Amino acid sequence: MELKNDRLLRALARQPVDRTPVWMMRQAGRYLPEYRATRAEAGNFMDLCRNHDLACEVTLQPLERYPLDGAILFSDILTIPDAMGLGLYFETGEGPKFRHPVRTPEAVAALSVPDAERDLDYVMRAVTTIRRELNGRVPLIGFSGSPWTLATYMVEGASSKDFRHVKTMLYDMPDTMHTLLDTLAHAVTDYLNAQIRAGAQVVQIFDTWGGVLSTPAYLEFSLRYMEQIVAGLIREHEGRRVPVILFTKNGGQWLEDLAASGADALGLDWSTELSDARHRVGHRVALQGNLDPNVLFARPEAIRAEVARVLDSYGQGPGHIFNLGHGISQFTDPDRVTAFMEALHELSPAYHQRIPHD
Amino acid sequence: MELKNDRLLRALARQPVDRTPVWMMRQAGRYLPEYRATRAEAGNFMDLCRNHDLACEVTLQPLERYPLDGAILFSDILTIPDAMGLGLYFETGEGPKFRHPVRTPEAVAALSVPDAERDLDYVMRAVTTIRRELNGRVPLIGFSGSPWTLATYMVEGASSKDFRHVKTMLYDMPDTMHTLLDTLAHAVTDYLNAQIRAGAQVVQIFDTWGGVLSTPAYLEFSLRYMEQIVAGLIREHEGRRVPVILFTKNGGQWLEDLAASGADALGLDWSTELSDARHRVGHRVALQGNLDPNVLFARPEAIRAEVARVLDSYGQGPGHIFNLGHGISQFTDPDRVTAFMEALHELSPAYHQRIPHD
Repeated sequence: MELKNDRLLRALARQPVDRTPVWMMRQAGRYLPEYRATRAEAGNFMDLCRNHDLACEVTLQPLERYPLDGAILFSDILTIPDAMGLGLYFETGEGPKFRHPVRTPEAVAALSVPDAERDLDYVMRAVTTIRRELNGRVPLIGFSGSPWTLATYMVEGASSKDFRHVKTMLYDMPDTMHTLLDTLAHAVTDYLNAQIRAGAQVVQIFDTWGGVLSTPAYLEFSLRYMEQIVAGLIREHEGRRVPVILFTKNGGQWLEDLAASGADALGLDWSTELSDARHRVGHRVALQGNLDPNVLFARPEAIRAEVARVLDSYGQGPGHIFNLGHGISQFTDPDRVTAFMEALHELSPAYHQRIPHD
Repeated sequence: MELKNDRLLRALARQPVDRTPVWMMRQAGRYLPEYRATRAEAGNFMDLCRNHDLACEVTLQPLERYPLDGAILFSDILTIPDAMGLGLYFETGEGPKFRHPVRTPEAVAALSVPDAERDLDYVMRAVTTIRRELNGRVPLIGFSGSPWTLATYMVEGASSKDFRHVKTMLYDMPDTMHTLLDTLAHAVTDYLNAQIRAGAQVVQIFDTWGGVLSTPAYLEFSLRYMEQIVAGLIREHEGRRVPVILFTKNGGQWLEDLAASGADALGLDWSTELSDARHRVGHRVALQGNLDPNVLFARPEAIRAEVARVLDSYGQGPGHIFNLGHGISQFTDPDRVTAFMEALHELSPAYHQRIPHD
């Protein structure tokens, strides 16, 4: 099937484009009234993830409103541990929780790698459905949490402020931690490859919590397993390269290591300057980011100024995918996103003008 | 009065020492059963801060257990906004809250700089009492939150995960934000100078939330006001230099800017390698840190290995103050702190051996 808008894929390959492509992390989400309506229809959050027609519906909603250059699969970051039998549930006003946290060598040893096609078939059905409904409009991005990030939830049993339990395992039982991460790396590889076979044209690994580690711990317990995944992924499908994006939140100090991982692109949060990142690693990877989502609470003129600043920081030429530095807030006014898109579409072409030959 | 142990002051001046000095952020705290007993006697947390005899008692408790090279004033980070009339209170199991958050230009304009000697006299009485009871045993460290960090609590009205309200003010009403930060910078300067006059021999500015900003926003809204404070502080007292330590959590990408602030030392969390930091700025400032406090949940051998790694990362010679990269967890077993201290005292002298002349 023809891809009508390949701007995202071209930028990920650091090829010339006419304007900077854009998508937003969590672009299908609670800030959109139409999302809240579908969610209410579905029941709870996991019911929405498990219903491939409704998951497709919410995936496409932001594309109806905004000129986005990519769609991202609507799903949860914790589908893998849920498929491992940890009993994912959500309590109102709180983050995800597990009924059966994993804290002992025995509990880790008892885990097995889910069969992605069978145990996570609802995800693959959603991917297939979304691809069909997209009909080549923009590429579909699949995703997974990183092994370390999944492990933080599995060991803590919930969101955490101090990561006490998972770091106790890391420092006190490093062999157990490695066993858990290796199991997860296999699971994530299978899961992303199943998404690619089902139709995902780009994949992103969300390492939301890599930034809470020391440098040596990050390299040993997070990056190493993302590298293992990247090495095991299908990199060509349907005759096209399937680019891989790594996003370690608060990973700005480790860009050189991330750029050597085999990934095609790195996602950046707003704490890292794009100019600095491009200077350090932009000859090896594309860069994605990095507007602070809180900018979208400001007036349109202030949004425009920050969009201009981010574009300017990356500078002229290909290899930049515009995004937020983290998921869009549920409290965002959808009209502010319109202002963001308008500023970007007006300002970004100037950064992609070809220099005429004499 | 003679200072019997000046290791901390010497290291802050990057002068030779016999072993690496150490103190721990939040060293007087809930992990100690004797602290919990005093706290129960005092009533609530602010009652403890306001009682100078009990504040002195808890300040000295960790020194009775461990061979620490500094004492840190027991107080709260939010005494200044409380003195401004925002109505600080604590709810069980939650962080600090304000009854009157500051979210409008009018609310910001209505704030005035507290008279530190009068409105925060309980803090100065605690400093005087602790200095007397320390009797020259180790230096006393005074402290304040940074203007930006205080502003986050004042605008949010509580701890925050997304800093939505304070960033809305920053992006949407930058002039109002600057007015607030300027008021706070004056208040912090007066407050720290009053602490120095009362007897604080070192001061640390805690910029706990500077790391949630983009680079240009950090420079404009956090670092700039810390520089303003540093420039206004008493730098000599009782015939000795009063060193200033700046600690921006998650500020590892901005060390060069921090080192140009006029501070004597930079505090580092564990995400930054000391070897890297020393290479970048160690010729200009001393460096403090940076063991992950979660290491203290591990076995003594694992604690020792991480202590060795941190010492090794800084390397040979003066200018290193050992500390945690963040406050010690309330869940820490005090015996693990003993293991930490033993490892440090056994291993660190090797990093301070003078090279004999030929």
